[in-house]
Amino acid sequence: MPEFQLDKRLAAVGVQALDLPLSRVLVMDDCRWPWLVLVPRRPHAVELFDLDAADRVIFGEEYSQAGARLKTLTGCHKINIAALGNAVPQLHVHVVARRIGDAAWPNPVWGRGEAVPYAPQALEAFVAQVVHLF
Amino acid sequence: MPEFQLDKRLAAVGVQALDLPLSRVLVMDDCRWPWLVLVPRRPHAVELFDLDAADRVIFGEEYSQAGARLKTLTGCHKINIAALGNAVPQLHVHVVARRIGDAAWPNPVWGRGEAVPYAPQALEAFVAQVVHLF
Repeated sequence: MPEFQLDKRLAAVGVQALDLPLSRVLVMDDCRWPWLVLVPRRPHAVELFDLDAADRVIFGEEYSQAGARLKTLTGCHKINIAALGNAVPQLHVHVVARRIGDAAWPNPVWGRGEAVPYAPQALEAFVAQVVHLF
Repeated sequence: MPEFQLDKRLAAVGVQALDLPLSRVLVMDDCRWPWLVLVPRRPHAVELFDLDAADRVIFGEEYSQAGARLKTLTGCHKINIAALGNAVPQLHVHVVARRIGDAAWPNPVWGRGEAVPYAPQALEAFVAQVVHLF
């Protein structure tokens, strides 16, 4: 099997926080929303249905649990979970904490202009909290 | 267990095409994108992680297979799968067929103004195709 390599466009917008059994967990550097991206370490997977059924169950539990834990951590109102991939084909699932009145509410967060990076210490602190969630 | 009732706001924007073992499948009446919504018939579920693990596996297979079949039917370039629920809390997953150059490409389809309804016969024909997929 070819080796997994994270797409460079995903690597450019997030911090690689930790590896779960199947997924790499990235923290997006955009302080407008607490935002994780989970990337299953399976080369060439583009759609959820490209994974085999066993991987899909593991991956489903990973993004669902990431959502549950991010909701507890942030006290947000809603979790948005999405596999889009229109810009970056490598299979990845967004897990975004949403608050009523946030910078895009009630619309989705994608395509809302430039990311607003965290202050360096704030990013480091949030990544540490995310690592501690798992 | 209380009886499942489809949220009126979902019922207002789509046609109830069929029931899978767990989900009701709706066809959105918006001809800009071939677009299904799957609603697990579990009262009070809002987040994916509100389902129990067994239901989550079934639901994951249902929305994933719906995506695979919609891709085959439409010959689209990409399937977008998303659990958002910022406007309608009842747990539902969007399964949308996307084409390069479509009315929102490469952005998501949500929040793009008013739906463009199908001609009545075209909607009926598409619903029949969707029913035939399963």
